[in-house]
Amino acid sequence: MNELSNKECEACRIDSPQVTEEESQKLILEIPKWEVIKLDGINCLRRTYEFTNFIEAIAFTNKVGEISEEEGHHPAILTEWGKVTVTWWTHKIKGLHNNDFIMAAKTDQLI
Amino acid sequence: MNELSNKECEACRIDSPQVTEEESQKLILEIPKWEVIKLDGINCLRRTYEFTNFIEAIAFTNKVGEISEEEGHHPAILTEWGKVTVTWWTHKIKGLHNNDFIMAAKTDQLI
Repeated sequence: MNELSNKECEACRIDSPQVTEEESQKLILEIPKWEVIKLDGINCLRRTYEFTNFIEAIAFTNKVGEISEEEGHHPAILTEWGKVTVTWWTHKIKGLHNNDFIMAAKTDQLI
Repeated sequence: MNELSNKECEACRIDSPQVTEEESQKLILEIPKWEVIKLDGINCLRRTYEFTNFIEAIAFTNKVGEISEEEGHHPAILTEWGKVTVTWWTHKIKGLHNNDFIMAAKTDQLI
Protein backbone atom coordinates (compact mmCIF):
# COMPACT_ATOMS: atom_id res chain seq x y z
CA MET A 1 0.00 0.00 0.00
CA ASN A 2 1.35 3.34 -1.04
CA GLU A 3 0.81 5.59 1.97
CA LEU A 4 1.04 8.84 0.02
CA SER A 5 -1.76 7.90 -2.37
CA ASN A 6 -4.12 7.23 0.51
CA LYS A 7 -3.74 10.69 2.00
CA GLU A 8 -6.10 13.55 1.26
CA CYS A 9 -5.12 17.04 0.27
CA GLU A 10 -5.22 19.56 3.09
CA ALA A 11 -6.51 23.08 2.64
CA CYS A 12 -3.74 25.20 1.17
CA ARG A 13 -3.46 28.88 1.97
CA ILE A 14 -1.41 31.49 0.20
CA ASP A 15 1.00 31.46 3.16
CA SER A 16 1.28 27.67 3.36
CA PRO A 17 4.90 26.56 3.24
CA GLN A 18 6.43 24.96 0.18
CA VAL A 19 8.01 21.59 0.82
CA THR A 20 11.67 21.93 1.72
CA GLU A 21 14.40 20.42 -0.44
CA GLU A 22 14.87 17.73 2.24
CA GLU A 23 11.14 16.91 2.34
CA SER A 24 11.00 16.86 -1.45
CA GLN A 25 13.86 14.35 -1.67
CA LYS A 26 12.09 12.10 0.82
CA LEU A 27 8.64 12.37 -0.79
CA ILE A 28 9.91 11.72 -4.31
CA LEU A 29 11.06 8.26 -3.17
CA GLU A 30 7.39 7.30 -2.97
CA ILE A 31 6.75 8.45 -6.55
CA PRO A 32 10.01 7.47 -8.29
CA LYS A 33 8.71 7.91 -11.83
CA TRP A 34 8.06 11.61 -11.27
CA GLU A 35 10.66 14.31 -11.59
CA VAL A 36 10.90 17.74 -10.09
CA ILE A 37 11.27 20.31 -12.86
CA LYS A 38 11.37 24.08 -12.82
CA LEU A 39 8.91 25.92 -15.08
CA ASP A 40 9.13 29.70 -15.17
CA GLY A 41 11.02 29.50 -11.88
CA ILE A 42 8.34 27.34 -10.23
CA ASN A 43 9.10 23.84 -8.96
CA CYS A 44 6.66 21.29 -10.40
CA LEU A 45 6.24 17.51 -10.47
CA ARG A 46 6.02 15.97 -13.93
CA ARG A 47 5.48 12.49 -15.35
CA THR A 48 4.67 11.28 -18.87
CA TYR A 49 2.49 8.17 -19.20
CA GLU A 50 2.54 6.21 -22.45
CA PHE A 51 -0.43 4.59 -24.20
CA THR A 52 -1.00 2.73 -27.44
CA ASN A 53 -3.39 5.21 -29.03
CA PHE A 54 -5.22 8.50 -28.59
CA ILE A 55 -8.40 7.07 -27.07
CA GLU A 56 -6.50 5.47 -24.19
CA ALA A 57 -4.59 8.70 -23.65
CA ILE A 58 -7.71 10.86 -23.42
CA ALA A 59 -9.44 8.27 -21.20
CA PHE A 60 -6.53 8.67 -18.78
CA THR A 61 -6.80 12.46 -19.03
CA ASN A 62 -10.41 12.16 -17.91
CA LYS A 63 -9.47 9.96 -14.96
CA VAL A 64 -6.91 12.55 -13.87
CA GLY A 65 -9.61 15.19 -14.28
CA GLU A 66 -11.96 13.24 -12.01
CA ILE A 67 -9.51 12.98 -9.11
CA SER A 68 -8.59 16.63 -9.60
CA GLU A 69 -12.20 17.65 -9.14
CA GLU A 70 -12.62 15.33 -6.14
CA GLU A 71 -9.66 16.87 -4.37
CA GLY A 72 -10.18 20.42 -5.62
CA HIS A 73 -6.62 20.55 -6.91
CA HIS A 74 -5.90 20.68 -10.64
CA PRO A 75 -2.81 19.89 -12.71
CA ALA A 76 -1.81 20.73 -16.25
CA ILE A 77 -2.58 17.71 -18.45
CA LEU A 78 -1.01 17.51 -21.89
CA THR A 79 -2.83 14.94 -24.03
CA GLU A 80 -1.19 13.72 -27.24
CA TRP A 81 -1.46 10.62 -29.42
CA GLY A 82 -0.16 7.80 -27.20
CA LYS A 83 0.94 9.89 -24.25
CA VAL A 84 -0.23 12.10 -21.42
CA THR A 85 2.06 14.39 -19.47
CA VAL A 86 0.79 15.46 -16.05
CA THR A 87 2.29 18.40 -14.18
CA TRP A 88 1.41 19.17 -10.56
CA TRP A 89 2.23 22.29 -8.58
CA THR A 90 0.36 24.57 -6.22
CA HIS A 91 -0.63 27.82 -7.89
CA LYS A 92 -1.31 29.63 -4.61
CA ILE A 93 2.21 29.18 -3.29
CA LYS A 94 3.92 29.08 -6.69
CA GLY A 95 5.71 25.88 -5.87
CA LEU A 96 5.37 22.38 -4.46
CA HIS A 97 3.11 21.62 -1.51
CA ASN A 98 2.70 18.25 0.16
CA ASN A 99 -0.63 18.05 -1.71
CA ASP A 100 1.20 17.82 -5.04
CA PHE A 101 3.08 14.72 -3.98
CA ILE A 102 -0.20 13.21 -2.75
CA MET A 103 -1.87 13.96 -6.11
CA ALA A 104 1.09 12.55 -8.05
CA ALA A 105 0.80 9.31 -6.06
CA LYS A 106 -2.97 9.24 -6.69
CA THR A 107 -2.33 9.80 -10.41
CA ASP A 108 -0.03 6.76 -10.45
CA GLN A 109 -2.89 4.69 -9.02
CA LEU A 110 -5.02 5.43 -12.10
CA ILE A 111 -2.97 3.34 -14.52
CA MET B 1 -20.28 29.55 -43.27
CA ASN B 2 -16.63 29.04 -42.66
CA GLU B 3 -15.37 27.17 -45.70
CA LEU B 4 -12.27 25.82 -44.04
CA SER B 5 -14.19 24.15 -41.22
CA ASN B 6 -16.37 22.28 -43.72
CA LYS B 7 -13.46 20.66 -45.49
CA GLU B 8 -12.19 17.21 -44.66
CA CYS B 9 -8.58 16.26 -44.08
CA GLU B 10 -6.90 14.62 -47.04
CA ALA B 11 -4.52 11.69 -46.68
CA CYS B 12 -1.10 13.01 -45.75
CA ARG B 13 2.06 11.21 -46.84
CA ILE B 14 5.56 11.72 -45.56
CA ASP B 15 6.39 13.51 -48.83
CA SER B 16 3.30 15.75 -48.78
CA PRO B 17 4.26 19.40 -49.06
CA GLN B 18 4.13 21.78 -46.13
CA VAL B 19 2.01 24.87 -46.72
CA THR B 20 4.08 27.71 -48.13
CA GLU B 21 4.52 30.96 -46.25
CA GLU B 22 2.13 32.60 -48.75
CA GLU B 23 -0.52 29.88 -48.31
CA SER B 24 -0.13 30.08 -44.53
CA GLN B 25 -0.72 33.84 -44.50
CA LYS B 26 -3.87 33.36 -46.56
CA LEU B 27 -5.24 30.43 -44.54
CA ILE B 28 -4.65 32.10 -41.18
CA LEU B 29 -7.12 34.84 -42.20
CA GLU B 30 -9.86 32.22 -41.84
CA ILE B 31 -8.75 31.34 -38.30
CA PRO B 32 -7.65 34.73 -36.94
CA LYS B 33 -7.48 33.68 -33.29
CA TRP B 34 -4.77 31.11 -34.04
CA GLU B 35 -1.10 31.90 -34.26
CA VAL B 36 1.72 30.16 -36.04
CA ILE B 37 4.44 29.32 -33.54
CA LYS B 38 7.67 27.38 -33.88
CA LEU B 39 8.25 24.50 -31.46
CA ASP B 40 11.58 22.70 -31.69
CA GLY B 41 11.94 24.15 -35.18
CA ILE B 42 8.51 22.91 -36.28
CA ASN B 43 5.77 25.33 -37.37
CA CYS B 44 2.55 24.74 -35.42
CA LEU B 45 -0.84 26.40 -35.02
CA ARG B 46 -1.79 27.28 -31.45
CA ARG B 47 -4.81 28.76 -29.72
CA THR B 48 -5.79 28.99 -26.06
CA TYR B 49 -9.49 28.82 -25.21
CA GLU B 50 -10.69 30.15 -21.84
CA PHE B 51 -13.38 28.65 -19.62
CA THR B 52 -14.81 29.41 -16.20
CA ASN B 53 -13.76 26.18 -14.48
CA PHE B 54 -11.99 22.87 -14.91
CA ILE B 55 -15.06 20.83 -15.88
CA GLU B 56 -15.79 23.06 -18.87
CA ALA B 57 -12.16 22.91 -19.90
CA ILE B 58 -11.99 19.12 -19.86
CA ALA B 59 -15.35 18.87 -21.64
CA PHE B 60 -13.83 20.93 -24.45
CA THR B 61 -10.74 18.71 -24.44
CA ASN B 62 -13.03 15.74 -25.05
CA LYS B 63 -14.79 17.48 -27.92
CA VAL B 64 -11.42 18.18 -29.54
CA GLY B 65 -10.54 14.53 -28.96
CA GLU B 66 -13.70 13.43 -30.75
CA ILE B 67 -13.04 15.42 -33.93
CA SER B 68 -9.42 14.28 -33.84
CA GLU B 69 -10.49 10.66 -33.88
CA GLU B 70 -13.05 11.32 -36.59
CA GLU B 71 -10.46 12.88 -38.87
CA GLY B 72 -7.57 10.63 -37.83
CA HIS B 73 -5.42 13.67 -37.04
CA HIS B 74 -4.47 14.48 -33.45
CA PRO B 75 -3.25 17.66 -31.78
CA ALA B 76 -1.55 18.32 -28.47
CA ILE B 77 -4.19 19.44 -25.97
CA LEU B 78 -3.08 21.12 -22.76
CA THR B 79 -5.91 21.11 -20.22
CA GLU B 80 -5.67 23.38 -17.18
CA TRP B 81 -8.14 24.95 -14.76
CA GLY B 82 -10.14 27.37 -16.92
CA LYS B 83 -8.20 26.98 -20.14
CA VAL B 84 -7.31 24.61 -22.93
CA THR B 85 -4.44 25.18 -25.34
CA VAL B 86 -4.67 23.29 -28.62
CA THR B 87 -1.65 22.85 -30.89
CA TRP B 88 -1.96 21.45 -34.41
CA TRP B 89 0.85 20.33 -36.70
CA THR B 90 1.48 17.36 -38.94
CA HIS B 91 3.94 14.92 -37.42
CA LYS B 92 4.67 13.13 -40.70
CA ILE B 93 5.94 16.25 -42.46
CA LYS B 94 7.22 18.01 -39.32
CA GLY B 95 5.32 21.15 -40.14
CA LEU B 96 2.01 22.60 -41.22
CA HIS B 97 -0.21 20.90 -43.78
CA ASN B 98 -3.49 22.23 -45.11
CA ASN B 99 -5.14 19.66 -42.79
CA ASP B 100 -3.93 21.57 -39.73
CA PHE B 101 -5.72 24.73 -40.82
CA ILE B 102 -8.87 22.68 -41.47
CA MET B 103 -8.63 21.11 -37.99
CA ALA B 104 -8.02 24.50 -36.36
CA ALA B 105 -11.19 25.81 -38.05
CA LYS B 106 -13.11 22.73 -36.92
CA THR B 107 -11.82 23.25 -33.37
CA ASP B 108 -13.18 26.81 -33.41
CA GLN B 109 -16.60 25.40 -34.29
CA LEU B 110 -16.70 23.45 -31.01
CA ILE B 111 -17.06 26.46 -28.73
